[in-house]
Amino acid sequence: MSRVYNFSAGPATLPEEVLAEARDQLLDYSASGMSILESSHRGAEFKAIHAEAISNLRDLLGVGEDHEILLLQGGATLQFAMVPLNLLAPGAVADYALSGAWAAKAFKEASSVGTVRAAADCSADRPARMPQSAELDLTPGAAYLHITTNETISGAQWHELPTPEAPLIADMSSDILSHPIDANAFDLIFAGAQKNLGPSGVTLVVIRRALMDRVPDSVPPMLRYRTHAEAGSMYNTPPCFGIYLLMLVTRWLKGLGGVDAIAERNRAKATKLYSAIDTTDYFTGSAAIDCRSEMNVTFRLPSEELEAKFVAEAAAAGMKGLKGHRSVGGIRASIYNACPPEAVDALVSFMADFERRNG
Amino acid sequence: MSRVYNFSAGPATLPEEVLAEARDQLLDYSASGMSILESSHRGAEFKAIHAEAISNLRDLLGVGEDHEILLLQGGATLQFAMVPLNLLAPGAVADYALSGAWAAKAFKEASSVGTVRAAADCSADRPARMPQSAELDLTPGAAYLHITTNETISGAQWHELPTPEAPLIADMSSDILSHPIDANAFDLIFAGAQKNLGPSGVTLVVIRRALMDRVPDSVPPMLRYRTHAEAGSMYNTPPCFGIYLLMLVTRWLKGLGGVDAIAERNRAKATKLYSAIDTTDYFTGSAAIDCRSEMNVTFRLPSEELEAKFVAEAAAAGMKGLKGHRSVGGIRASIYNACPPEAVDALVSFMADFERRNG
Repeated sequence: MSRVYNFSAGPATLPEEVLAEARDQLLDYSASGMSILESSHRGAEFKAIHAEAISNLRDLLGVGEDHEILLLQGGATLQFAMVPLNLLAPGAVADYALSGAWAAKAFKEASSVGTVRAAADCSADRPARMPQSAELDLTPGAAYLHITTNETISGAQWHELPTPEAPLIADMSSDILSHPIDANAFDLIFAGAQKNLGPSGVTLVVIRRALMDRVPDSVPPMLRYRTHAEAGSMYNTPPCFGIYLLMLVTRWLKGLGGVDAIAERNRAKATKLYSAIDTTDYFTGSAAIDCRSEMNVTFRLPSEELEAKFVAEAAAAGMKGLKGHRSVGGIRASIYNACPPEAVDALVSFMADFERRNG
Repeated sequence: MSRVYNFSAGPATLPEEVLAEARDQLLDYSASGMSILESSHRGAEFKAIHAEAISNLRDLLGVGEDHEILLLQGGATLQFAMVPLNLLAPGAVADYALSGAWAAKAFKEASSVGTVRAAADCSADRPARMPQSAELDLTPGAAYLHITTNETISGAQWHELPTPEAPLIADMSSDILSHPIDANAFDLIFAGAQKNLGPSGVTLVVIRRALMDRVPDSVPPMLRYRTHAEAGSMYNTPPCFGIYLLMLVTRWLKGLGGVDAIAERNRAKATKLYSAIDTTDYFTGSAAIDCRSEMNVTFRLPSEELEAKFVAEAAAAGMKGLKGHRSVGGIRASIYNACPPEAVDALVSFMADFERRNG
């Protein structure tokens, strides 16, 4: 068996030790005589996993008891709908910072539910960037401001977060737990697991408890945050195996030294890769320098033909998933928490070699 | 490693060969150099898995091209909400056959969305039973009739299905693909995977295409069947690993000879277990004889103390998950497709032995 370096944007690479542990326990979890895939979500084994997952998340995020931590299904996309269903009452207005494809998808879902407004729109700007806090045109008395902390497709990331008067809601799918944030400053954080937390099929929601009371009667219980909070995320059968892997990933992250330690490692990886881009005119970064993402590094080569060749040759050399999103083209290296520094070293070497051969 | 016989109601036992294959590929799927847990849902490996899952399901269910097959998240519980959001227009009425805990949960979700009516209610009947088609009080022009084909908690199952004029919608979570049905006669079938199809976190939806057009504008795209149908169940990142296991389970089922073959095996298992219950007064079946479930066999012992002892001693003897649901007590043996006949043989022997020692 030979594992490649996987730069996919998500589902994304997982720590090899996490996969190895899951494999070793796949037919018999913790001497229970059954796989965790087959275990009742009400049984002692899964309950302990679930509790450790929540506890590790609370610890790593540093959120207090004013916030509820939920593990749900449906991905960030279901959150794009649940947020307005729960928090955008008739007559109210919600502000959205339109920063790219993911913010646009959130905006579209919410516009079916109620009145939404673009507080900024830099989706079409090239190089790609995030709105600056100062340019946000906020609605007085808005139900909330929705931001997308990292745009995986364009490769832009918020580095200085806004502090609106309205509740602040953030889609952190692609940079959660990658660097320290003040999670208590957010009213609602959500994240699909498949970039920094585990496999696809699990969604993390961190919600200020006081925010759970405003829901219209017409919203079914299954789509209310309060329902899931009151049931300890067990209102319906949870995605058990995904939560098990999320627990192992958070345990792995704590073992590495937590968010501060991974942030240092992430910064070093991103710096090395952006330096490789900036030291030659052969490569061009796709995002504005002050908005560059530490998670998704996007860049161009002199032609689309060379980009296709780059992707193919990199894959042959054991570096997969480097093709940019079909909507923007180019190259994208996703270097989430679980991407080892050696993967970036290998990519940087390959880039220099590719330029030498094709420059 | 020693695997037990697992009688859990769901998440439930999976075929050992499916688990073994998943384990062997867990760090490197099909020589791709990465786990399927880490593979892009747009990549060749996962696309082939997804296509085979849909194709196997279409084949095993015997549904034609008038029906769309979707693989979603959120379990049957999200379907309890999506069904009325998509199909219960303002001013219309939906009929529900209240047969137990699961039908009640569906009814409750729908009652937030629109006008719902109980076409029958035998939830409180003991022994547990299903409504008979003749006793259904159907609303003329109803938006649909919702039934629950098998109630896992009470252990009752529909054996003769109704044929209403209104669209027929069935929650088949706990008996899908366990015996032949005319799937084309249903307008919408849904099922959480964690009983007969795979692990928790995947939901099967089989919907008549003509039914997808009636949705009010206020329903967010993520909650519309049409959205998922148009995107081939890839509107958002799917629960990839669960779909992979579902594909392996459907492949396993086809290898066994398909639904007819498993139905014969299921019938034999259920007959053997109900015979063991009926040949002595020591055990009492909880469901009416003509409504007995072939998936969840529920019965009582002479006292709750003996039931607790039975569950504990069975677990010690390698038979787990036999405790009845907390809301009804007693014993429940869930004997889904993947439960091997040997498990039922072992349980029947244990029952005779237990009676001898405690009769």
